[in-house]
Amino acid sequence: MNSKFSFLIIALVTVFNVNATESEWRELDPNNTVLLTLPHGKVVIELAPQFSPNHVNRFKTLTQKGHYNGNKFYRVIDGFVAQGGPEDGSVKDKAISELKIEGDFSIDKDWAFTLVQENDLFAQQTGFKEGFALGRDNKESKAWMLHCPGVIAMARGNEPNTATSHFYITNGQATRYLDRIMTVFGRVVYGMNHVQSITRTSVIEGDTPVDKKDYTQMISMQLMSDLPKEQQIRLAIENTEHPSYAKKLSDRRKRDNAFFYKKPPPVLDICQTPVGVRRIK
Amino acid sequence: MNSKFSFLIIALVTVFNVNATESEWRELDPNNTVLLTLPHGKVVIELAPQFSPNHVNRFKTLTQKGHYNGNKFYRVIDGFVAQGGPEDGSVKDKAISELKIEGDFSIDKDWAFTLVQENDLFAQQTGFKEGFALGRDNKESKAWMLHCPGVIAMARGNEPNTATSHFYITNGQATRYLDRIMTVFGRVVYGMNHVQSITRTSVIEGDTPVDKKDYTQMISMQLMSDLPKEQQIRLAIENTEHPSYAKKLSDRRKRDNAFFYKKPPPVLDICQTPVGVRRIK
Repeated sequence: MNSKFSFLIIALVTVFNVNATESEWRELDPNNTVLLTLPHGKVVIELAPQFSPNHVNRFKTLTQKGHYNGNKFYRVIDGFVAQGGPEDGSVKDKAISELKIEGDFSIDKDWAFTLVQENDLFAQQTGFKEGFALGRDNKESKAWMLHCPGVIAMARGNEPNTATSHFYITNGQATRYLDRIMTVFGRVVYGMNHVQSITRTSVIEGDTPVDKKDYTQMISMQLMSDLPKEQQIRLAIENTEHPSYAKKLSDRRKRDNAFFYKKPPPVLDICQTPVGVRRIK
Repeated sequence: MNSKFSFLIIALVTVFNVNATESEWRELDPNNTVLLTLPHGKVVIELAPQFSPNHVNRFKTLTQKGHYNGNKFYRVIDGFVAQGGPEDGSVKDKAISELKIEGDFSIDKDWAFTLVQENDLFAQQTGFKEGFALGRDNKESKAWMLHCPGVIAMARGNEPNTATSHFYITNGQATRYLDRIMTVFGRVVYGMNHVQSITRTSVIEGDTPVDKKDYTQMISMQLMSDLPKEQQIRLAIENTEHPSYAKKLSDRRKRDNAFFYKKPPPVLDICQTPVGVRRIK
């Protein structure tokens, strides 16, 4: 083999590794993963400190202090959100300071993600980075986490910098109009069916209201790494930076399968594009 | 009052009535409404004979014969669908003939709906007609029911005209890539929280499989008009043809509310645009 050519191969392999594309799956970091125990099942949330560092820091600190244990989901609207937190006006509630919003973040032109769709209804581009669904605007040099189903975000008042500890998990069609004006800081990677079974507190006009004693309680919210190994739920997530994932996206767009006797438009709604999860024993 | 002017007013009022815009709400027709009783709650489905006549006819006939009573939801995937029907290969299953697909229908240029969005990711136009979310393509002169969360559609094999009695209800982010190649024939208007609580039969790799005995059963599927009056669930639906609804859409697009300290793009995802439902006693 020509030595110039072999140098080129080594250089390419190096770039490949630098881009964290060595494996199709990555194990979740238990220090960045939260276990929410509900009366009817367990929910695992992956946090995103790379995109919303202060909110993740706040959420982890409160979780480790036991702040959410026994809190209720007091605002649960079907097809929208399950919102929970300490009782309004309680000592626990009032003790928490307000956070500066992290609705979007600055990027430069070298910032990369795995492109899913150009000219999505709400964003110039959508794509995945480390398993999270993001929007991107190159003119504004900004990126942001998207309100797909199953994301966790902090609630706030009318002013942008008023989030404290109350959070919501989206449970219906993506509420993309909330993108950039709320801080998403993680997503449910396991047990979304249990999130969907949280008691709705909001009923339609004319229907029987739900008694507050029936609101779903968070038995506990725990950082996975604080649990004994045998109680941890270990998960691996598909590596959205691996070339095999880009290939999956391309295949999904083509729908080259006998079931599609007529092809749908070759577009992808990122919030309806799966990122695989596996349980590790 | 000038008599010519009063004639004009009468003529306008007449047109107004012809367009069924006389009321902001309409009561559901119990002859076009189905009650699905699950072990954990009641679900009401409004059928759409105006868009998918043969599938609605089939579903009503089977419902009245008790075909679905005791059937199980055997394919339930979180964020996708809850699919049910008689046991595969059973007498009940094999006795049903195949249906011609009703994925879309022809329209002329006078066909009207309440426009929601131009150049949606999947359709040239989206809009509501009689409470149902539709797509429209004016070049092709076609319209079709959209795969928003909570629609009911017939399952099929790879060939288009192979639906029999198995159906699915969508339970996650809109599966719009299935638009026009599956027959949607109604939508859940009450009890979507109970649909969301149907046991998932599909688990991730490495997780404990669900025992078939734990699959959710349809206790009964009944045409509302076949029930005694006192057992009927009576509902009113917002009239999407009324000018007040168009005004709501316009307001929603503007997001002219203190909460929106920064305005989102002035677009609407029809599957995330509510149509009100009220219970009538």
